[in-house]
Amino acid sequence: LEPDQLVQQVAAMDDQPLKGIRLVLTAGPTRESLDPVRYITNHSSGRMGFAIAESAARQGADVTLVAGPVSLPTPNGVQRVDVETAEDMQKAVDEALTNGTDWFVATAAVADYRPVTRSESKIKKNKDSAPVIELQQNPDILASVAARKQNRPFTVGFAAETNNVSDYAKDKLKRKNLDMIVANDVSAPDIGFNSDRNAVEVFWEGGSQKYDARSKTELATDLLTLIHKRSRA
Amino acid sequence: LEPDQLVQQVAAMDDQPLKGIRLVLTAGPTRESLDPVRYITNHSSGRMGFAIAESAARQGADVTLVAGPVSLPTPNGVQRVDVETAEDMQKAVDEALTNGTDWFVATAAVADYRPVTRSESKIKKNKDSAPVIELQQNPDILASVAARKQNRPFTVGFAAETNNVSDYAKDKLKRKNLDMIVANDVSAPDIGFNSDRNAVEVFWEGGSQKYDARSKTELATDLLTLIHKRSRA
Repeated sequence: LEPDQLVQQVAAMDDQPLKGIRLVLTAGPTRESLDPVRYITNHSSGRMGFAIAESAARQGADVTLVAGPVSLPTPNGVQRVDVETAEDMQKAVDEALTNGTDWFVATAAVADYRPVTRSESKIKKNKDSAPVIELQQNPDILASVAARKQNRPFTVGFAAETNNVSDYAKDKLKRKNLDMIVANDVSAPDIGFNSDRNAVEVFWEGGSQKYDARSKTELATDLLTLIHKRSRA
Repeated sequence: LEPDQLVQQVAAMDDQPLKGIRLVLTAGPTRESLDPVRYITNHSSGRMGFAIAESAARQGADVTLVAGPVSLPTPNGVQRVDVETAEDMQKAVDEALTNGTDWFVATAAVADYRPVTRSESKIKKNKDSAPVIELQQNPDILASVAARKQNRPFTVGFAAETNNVSDYAKDKLKRKNLDMIVANDVSAPDIGFNSDRNAVEVFWEGGSQKYDARSKTELATDLLTLIHKRSRA
């Protein structure tokens, strides 16, 4: 080996710090249909999750991305599974989480509730009375993964909140038995859901780390470095 | 004038058959918020309305496009007003409909209902009871324009239905006092909401016309030709 070849090989190795890691992640909103035309959803753009998927694949991880309805291209080298509802997402996550999955990162904004009934045909407007939408709870995908007794991956949640952001996040970390939670104040107009930038604070048992506003691409790589470190702690 | 100049000028005139026409149209879905994160919406992509706006502007019309949240570029020469809710759309339409407006074409899928209350902060999940969404009627923009006593434009509605499509459309034509209605079967997977193609049947008092599946661009021009003809009938 010539010295410059050696340098190149070492550089290539260094570019793949996540080689051997199997990552399953969720991204985007879910859609809960009222009828064939109308649905309940949320403002999640999927960008943060797609940025993490892209960065992880570039760093050599084996990535499965379970995505709700978003208009984003599939990152290079990422295996993508498209879903619509929270129930679809749970099924897809259960299938993706094989024995060898190292990390589960749940960035998706999964609907907490879905309508009790879904009409097969478009609901007609009723002149006399406004309808009421009765809701029922959706499965809690993140909590169910974190509650696994066997084959439990290192489990990271996201908390998108508009107020008392870090309190809610720390409560969710404990309540759902997560290894780490990324808290995201979506009330700030310049960061969060539909922005290219994001600022977060990450919590784990006995520690936290703040990341000031930066591009979602940059933040994705920072978060993966932190997950890598904490998952071996 | 040289003969080839004359030919060019005539060709240019012929390309502008809608010169002098002032058109206001609506497109896309509306969003009705439950809280800062969640909302009710529908599958309208806005493509049919944007195609009509583009074709009309190309043909020389003065076009104002009131658009719900869609991810489509503004067509050349079109004045665009972005709105989110049905109430926003009504205000924007009322402002756009000046005395000189010739045609009002309502392609938007306006939410019939909105939640009675809109929470200023994200509604928290409640372990014990699932919430109920109480709804109230939104303004009927199309019917209110068609009911004008003065400065009433030639008013065209769209009916996106999943069953008994032409019956519902003909009923809506009469009930809302429209000049024309375009009926659209959105249950067919290859046409309608998220497709580039569409097939419709158009009804007016005493007549109808069927358009088999074709590109939305082509259909837009066909519909404008029909509107032009019927508005002078």
